[in-house]
Amino acid sequence: MKFVNDIKDRVFLIFGGSGFIGSNLARTLIDAGARVISVSRVKGQESTDPRLKHVVADINSVDSYRHFIEESDHIVYLISATTPATSANDAILDVRSNLIPFISFLEENAGAHKLPVTFASSGGTVYGVPNYLPIDERHSTDPICPYGIIKLAMEKYLGYYSRSGKFDFTILRLANPYGGRFHRRADQGVIDVFARKIGRNEPLTVWGEGGVVRDYVNIDDVCNAFIKVFQYSGETRIFNIGSGKGHSILEIIAMLGASAKKKAEITFLPSRPHDIRENVLDISLAKSELDWAPKIKFELGVLDTVRNIL
Amino acid sequence: MKFVNDIKDRVFLIFGGSGFIGSNLARTLIDAGARVISVSRVKGQESTDPRLKHVVADINSVDSYRHFIEESDHIVYLISATTPATSANDAILDVRSNLIPFISFLEENAGAHKLPVTFASSGGTVYGVPNYLPIDERHSTDPICPYGIIKLAMEKYLGYYSRSGKFDFTILRLANPYGGRFHRRADQGVIDVFARKIGRNEPLTVWGEGGVVRDYVNIDDVCNAFIKVFQYSGETRIFNIGSGKGHSILEIIAMLGASAKKKAEITFLPSRPHDIRENVLDISLAKSELDWAPKIKFELGVLDTVRNIL
Repeated sequence: MKFVNDIKDRVFLIFGGSGFIGSNLARTLIDAGARVISVSRVKGQESTDPRLKHVVADINSVDSYRHFIEESDHIVYLISATTPATSANDAILDVRSNLIPFISFLEENAGAHKLPVTFASSGGTVYGVPNYLPIDERHSTDPICPYGIIKLAMEKYLGYYSRSGKFDFTILRLANPYGGRFHRRADQGVIDVFARKIGRNEPLTVWGEGGVVRDYVNIDDVCNAFIKVFQYSGETRIFNIGSGKGHSILEIIAMLGASAKKKAEITFLPSRPHDIRENVLDISLAKSELDWAPKIKFELGVLDTVRNIL
Repeated sequence: MKFVNDIKDRVFLIFGGSGFIGSNLARTLIDAGARVISVSRVKGQESTDPRLKHVVADINSVDSYRHFIEESDHIVYLISATTPATSANDAILDVRSNLIPFISFLEENAGAHKLPVTFASSGGTVYGVPNYLPIDERHSTDPICPYGIIKLAMEKYLGYYSRSGKFDFTILRLANPYGGRFHRRADQGVIDVFARKIGRNEPLTVWGEGGVVRDYVNIDDVCNAFIKVFQYSGETRIFNIGSGKGHSILEIIAMLGASAKKKAEITFLPSRPHDIRENVLDISLAKSELDWAPKIKFELGVLDTVRNIL
């Protein structure tokens, strides 16, 4: 039996619960009958649902969140204090704000609680320049940006502490999530950012010629992958979660324009040195092991995103 | 021409120049006609050789060593503030004392000096549990101890800053160096530690049954590999440097005992969870690209080490 873990009434502690992935995942978990403790840096909205508790803690202080771990059954770690762009500007800040708090958390969990941990890694950056496409989980990991270097190191520390502390873990190497019921930060996610700009009749900024190809996956499909992982009890620890298909920036702009029935104006800037030309994930392993597949057709997902935003 | 760089009169800045590898390498470089600025944390011996300058700097403060970089042509980075054993005890200290100063150094070099950098990485830990033996440079990198995780992250940051700052670099993934004219710290290197203990008639501590196999390479051979790398101008960036052969702990104890003409007493302790059973490096790439091969026969190297210590 690969799926033995019933998630009903289980308590999920989500570090980064008010972020883009976290807020969507919290809702999906509650809809599936689970309970959620959503940990954020700052006080956000009050929850009207008794199964969802918003709490405030500082990821840099184990004391501030230890008691929340004690109330939980499973930990989901989604915190990223940086983005690929900001981590390139200050690599040491990236180490201090992402890697070190994560190690402290892992030490705490390995020593005392030993809860299973699910970690959101970055399928777009940990592999680096692909040797072949689509990229499966056995592809070499040679990240070319600080964001990816840190995510990879976090994966390794998670493995290390799970062995020394004997707790279970899974890693989801996510492609580029988009859409969803809860909106993301204004500067994250090209589809959402572009949809908003088109809505406001602002020009879109494109680095290079717009030929950069990425794997975009609807956040609802991502949340369902998390649910599958929470139920999973097999041996596999690392899963690519994407659509398995690639779309160029220019394709996306055309699609957004058609959905919004507007013609987008584009400002072309010189290409960025650390932009990998093409990144598409092989999702066969998630399909076979987790019995998961993305269900939302890309064109419909984009249309829905545009409708939500406009 | 793969070997265009004459090292005569070139100035090598060695970070960690008073350590085991550093002090042996400094001597080899000077014998080859180069000049050396040896950077250490604390004031050590005075140099009697005008081509060797001992200087003191704090790796945590770029200001303390910037002017030494300005006097140099090539940087060798050998500093490791931790060992595999100590890094497991305090992973965050490992990050703070090894990774962060290295990033600061890379930022400084990428921004201003753009000198070539040669980095000593760890062939014994960055690969993790081997999928096949001997391990070549294309083997997957999945370190299972904090020491290896940090070394791997340091390799990645070196690659990142060399691209963004446009400076050259090489990485030597070293097996287990032993022997040499300059002695190492008392707690490092099983051959040297055991040789000293046998000399003092102290019992040897063995974790597990003594079947753990490692690749031991004489420090003089390692230093010659560095010299080859300093002269190299080809495209390869990462080289395994070892002997290509494996020896078990019990084999080594027998060899040391025979060399010292003493029977060693062994204290067996439970095996350690993070000890990889067998690690032997494939050194074909260094042979073909660098025209380097280890020259010191293991049995003779061990005998020499015992003679130096007894």
